[in-house]
Amino acid sequence: MNTTEEVATKLAEYCRKSEWRKALDDLYANDIVSVEAHAMENMPAEMRGIDQVRGKTDWWEKNMEVHSANVTGPFVARDTFVVGFDIDVTEKASGKRMQLSEVGIYKVKDGKVAHEEFLPLAQKKQ
Amino acid sequence: MNTTEEVATKLAEYCRKSEWRKALDDLYANDIVSVEAHAMENMPAEMRGIDQVRGKTDWWEKNMEVHSANVTGPFVARDTFVVGFDIDVTEKASGKRMQLSEVGIYKVKDGKVAHEEFLPLAQKKQ
Repeated sequence: MNTTEEVATKLAEYCRKSEWRKALDDLYANDIVSVEAHAMENMPAEMRGIDQVRGKTDWWEKNMEVHSANVTGPFVARDTFVVGFDIDVTEKASGKRMQLSEVGIYKVKDGKVAHEEFLPLAQKKQ
Repeated sequence: MNTTEEVATKLAEYCRKSEWRKALDDLYANDIVSVEAHAMENMPAEMRGIDQVRGKTDWWEKNMEVHSANVTGPFVARDTFVVGFDIDVTEKASGKRMQLSEVGIYKVKDGKVAHEEFLPLAQKKQ
């Protein structure tokens, strides 16, 4: 069974190669809970189960053109790890280009990712 | 009462100025729980209460010479935020210079930091 650090290292490697689907197949629990900061379009902020999370990945790949992705980490302790993402992306429908910066907090149970939560960089107030 | 984002933004500002003590006085709950990845010297990994956490800050300032500190974030969602730290530091007793890279995961309750947990960057395997 993979340790937290092994799961974390593999996940960061998949993310660096933009192999999101392989990450899901290899590292995620069937009862994964995935929490975004906000609901998007028709997707609730919280999704449950590997099928819903695969759907989110499909939506992302279909709707977003990724120009570059910088992945930091993993940072690991006990059952928890953190990975950072800086993504330069264009929303295909609108043509809007965005620089997304966020971190994911992941919880590992029985050698699989059982919970993930994404936190966006706070906007600077002037 | 401060929101999670307000607490997060203030904490990151204090950390950027190395004002660790002000951060504790202003933003931390009296019953703070602070968890390091590993026990250090005579300090357990988990500390409870503002006095123990002040003691940790005193130990750090007494034993470490900080050459530079780069703080990233905060990343914020719901009751949780993450701040990243890259610290170039010399342990005064040994003269050993180290580059520490870690993230803190913070939980906010009633407008104060009630739980913090630190996760070091995983070491690269060759």
